[in-house]
Amino acid sequence: MDVLDWLAAALGEEAVDAGALTTDPALLDAARTDRSGWVADGRPLAIVTARTVEQVQATLRAASEFRVPVVPRGAGTGLAGGANGTDGSIVLDVSALNRIVEISADDQLAVVEPGVVNSDLNAALEPYGLFFAPDPASKAVSTVGGNIATNAGGLLCAKYGVTREAVLGLDVVLADGRLIHTGHRTVKGVTGYDLTALFVGSEGTLGVIVGATVRAQPIPPGEPVTLGALFSDVTAAAQASARITAARLRPAVMELLDAPALERIAAYLGPATIEDAFGAAGGAAYLLVQFDGATAAVDATAAGDLLAETGGTVRVAADAQEGERLLAIRRAFHPALASSGEVLIEDVAVPRSRMPEMFAAIERISERYGIPIPTVAHAGDGNLHPNFVYTGETVPDAVWDAANDLFRTAIALGGTLTGEHGVGVLKRRWLADEIGPDSYELQVKLKSVFDPLGILNPGKVFGGA
Amino acid sequence: MDVLDWLAAALGEEAVDAGALTTDPALLDAARTDRSGWVADGRPLAIVTARTVEQVQATLRAASEFRVPVVPRGAGTGLAGGANGTDGSIVLDVSALNRIVEISADDQLAVVEPGVVNSDLNAALEPYGLFFAPDPASKAVSTVGGNIATNAGGLLCAKYGVTREAVLGLDVVLADGRLIHTGHRTVKGVTGYDLTALFVGSEGTLGVIVGATVRAQPIPPGEPVTLGALFSDVTAAAQASARITAARLRPAVMELLDAPALERIAAYLGPATIEDAFGAAGGAAYLLVQFDGATAAVDATAAGDLLAETGGTVRVAADAQEGERLLAIRRAFHPALASSGEVLIEDVAVPRSRMPEMFAAIERISERYGIPIPTVAHAGDGNLHPNFVYTGETVPDAVWDAANDLFRTAIALGGTLTGEHGVGVLKRRWLADEIGPDSYELQVKLKSVFDPLGILNPGKVFGGA
Repeated sequence: MDVLDWLAAALGEEAVDAGALTTDPALLDAARTDRSGWVADGRPLAIVTARTVEQVQATLRAASEFRVPVVPRGAGTGLAGGANGTDGSIVLDVSALNRIVEISADDQLAVVEPGVVNSDLNAALEPYGLFFAPDPASKAVSTVGGNIATNAGGLLCAKYGVTREAVLGLDVVLADGRLIHTGHRTVKGVTGYDLTALFVGSEGTLGVIVGATVRAQPIPPGEPVTLGALFSDVTAAAQASARITAARLRPAVMELLDAPALERIAAYLGPATIEDAFGAAGGAAYLLVQFDGATAAVDATAAGDLLAETGGTVRVAADAQEGERLLAIRRAFHPALASSGEVLIEDVAVPRSRMPEMFAAIERISERYGIPIPTVAHAGDGNLHPNFVYTGETVPDAVWDAANDLFRTAIALGGTLTGEHGVGVLKRRWLADEIGPDSYELQVKLKSVFDPLGILNPGKVFGGA
Repeated sequence: MDVLDWLAAALGEEAVDAGALTTDPALLDAARTDRSGWVADGRPLAIVTARTVEQVQATLRAASEFRVPVVPRGAGTGLAGGANGTDGSIVLDVSALNRIVEISADDQLAVVEPGVVNSDLNAALEPYGLFFAPDPASKAVSTVGGNIATNAGGLLCAKYGVTREAVLGLDVVLADGRLIHTGHRTVKGVTGYDLTALFVGSEGTLGVIVGATVRAQPIPPGEPVTLGALFSDVTAAAQASARITAARLRPAVMELLDAPALERIAAYLGPATIEDAFGAAGGAAYLLVQFDGATAAVDATAAGDLLAETGGTVRVAADAQEGERLLAIRRAFHPALASSGEVLIEDVAVPRSRMPEMFAAIERISERYGIPIPTVAHAGDGNLHPNFVYTGETVPDAVWDAANDLFRTAIALGGTLTGEHGVGVLKRRWLADEIGPDSYELQVKLKSVFDPLGILNPGKVFGGA
């Protein structure tokens, strides 16, 4: 009896007939990749599409029994190769575990299965005046389980926190098939080690998340107010964003686009779009700021004055429609780049005060390697997404060399090589550089506590040295 | 050569002459206890008062070499016995490591040594318009390192988060004396497992915290506005607090005192104090609410209307002075109890919606065991501090029986046996009940990764089964 026979028996005839276990080559090939474009070598053995926690448990028992790697997967929208089905693995797809089990308005929390799509959860919370704060760019398609597995970020993090801060407790199936529950339904709780935080961002290497109790925050009252500002260069824009922070204003969103980004967006939207929004004025860097809550209008006016003082050409949106036009410039970043070639989306973060240096380094690296690197930054938290533009089917070596330079610069500036995407496969070779050999060794030992047989997403996060 | 000789040599003559190593019986005895009143059996071997990271490292190397337990200790203000010096241990006092190394207003963070007192850090941040959010009741004397080691809470957590959310990175000396750094200076960062979160709340069982990079938040603008309300019973007060949350108002502080608490406070302050504040009206439960930020006055008025609608006798403070009088009622809780006997301060947390049930259970347990249990709750996050009043030198068995009942009730309501004090020694026998045998086993294995020789604060948190 091989692992697939064992698994079929464990899942049961009914589930198998309903498609819980497939070896369809086209599906297996599709599971080899994610939104990073990286494709795993070889081919997975099978895909299990779990519809119950018991099926997840059965899959892990089978994998333990036969020492077969398991790759947990949600919507497959990752950007680091973490959920890509590797050769000979069982891809454990939990995206069909997609029920919202409970919304408690009184306790301001939701209990969900991992496959619930981020924006579906938000749509369900909205009638209660609540929202789930993590807002990765993929939120319309990515799952809450995937957001948790990668500790996803987004635009709102500087004000509303990263995913870790939004997770109260987890249901996790361990490598041997046991189900544990971590954390609390309470805001506070200090019994033992924080296993919840340990699973958040663990990229499928410690266990399979099959349920989550997440915080739901009150939607800020009133309408948000948006402003945009054009600057002569990215350093001026970065300094202006720092002044907003220094003034103790707390924007919900603060996004910065550099010159190569703005050029491509202008070409994509038509140059008149930006000029029209700014009364014919031009600029080489764009700062988009949005305030929410009861003081949004007052804060936006104060921020607008500050940005104008620092040399910006400022538009404070008079209404939601004008706000949308200012937001549209930022939103056009990814489509504009997609229309101009292939891109490797990077994800460094630096302390806010080092952003001007990081932008200068990106410019230098772009020149040195002859690679365009249009960049957007979540300026409120120093998280930059340099996009390496290239042609061809796979990422050229020169792009990786340039990325290597970029990562080392970010680390040298007191930053990190990934602010919100995760390590996956694509960044594992720099992990030890950032965290150091002693922490690396501890982390590998930690993994072995949860995964003594090495079946949980092996080759991801670690093993890149 | 014994461990003390080895240690004296490693610390160096100069440090030893300056008092870095002591075996003074009076000091050893003082280190056997904390603010919980629990006194460890036997006596520690010695106390090391470290003034450098190297001295911490030397102490751990000595402890590893001779297999001697190390008990890390800050100000000794814990309430669960976690830092109490046990028989034959080396107490490693880090309270003299008390420099504020850096404050970065631009990056809104501070880098501190572990012995910095919470309120000293806040005093240093204040000129920058920043504050360190964790505010345990002990903040005037407890250390940031101790706050981190216990994941301390406080009054402001519902709005501003617990300690874990305020810690960006840590410097930790491992059991074998190696120094590692975890986390980032950035808000975001997802490289590998979240070791920072694992150390937060680990109560000295995984390593010794010798440095911390903590978030500093902008002080909310304007003056806070305080209101107080008297209710006919604690259930009405708890429901009223739930209505404030349900109305999406976000108080900075929301504290609830039950009837046995209010009686003692009235006796302590003189009954006229409360009656004067409320224009001669009386009540059996007290809700104190404070709003901060730009909308404080508007929010306080809205909350006051809500509380009045739900049957409260409400005073919205017209100025800071009146606010102080309303706050003074809450602040009198601990002194009032201290003047009426010995107390065991408990620390359960339940989902906010279950607070009325928890208060009812406390009343029932108080009657069943014949023990007065005046209670104060951080109503915004469901964290209750039932104070078991007793006489005599040690906590009577009947009090522990009653506490046992209380813990089981909190867990049954979806809560936890400790919201913010930690497990230490006093709650270890209930830990497995709450987290379950599988999580317990995982946690013990996790500890052994960091502490293979079992020298780090043994007998704390675990070992109570």
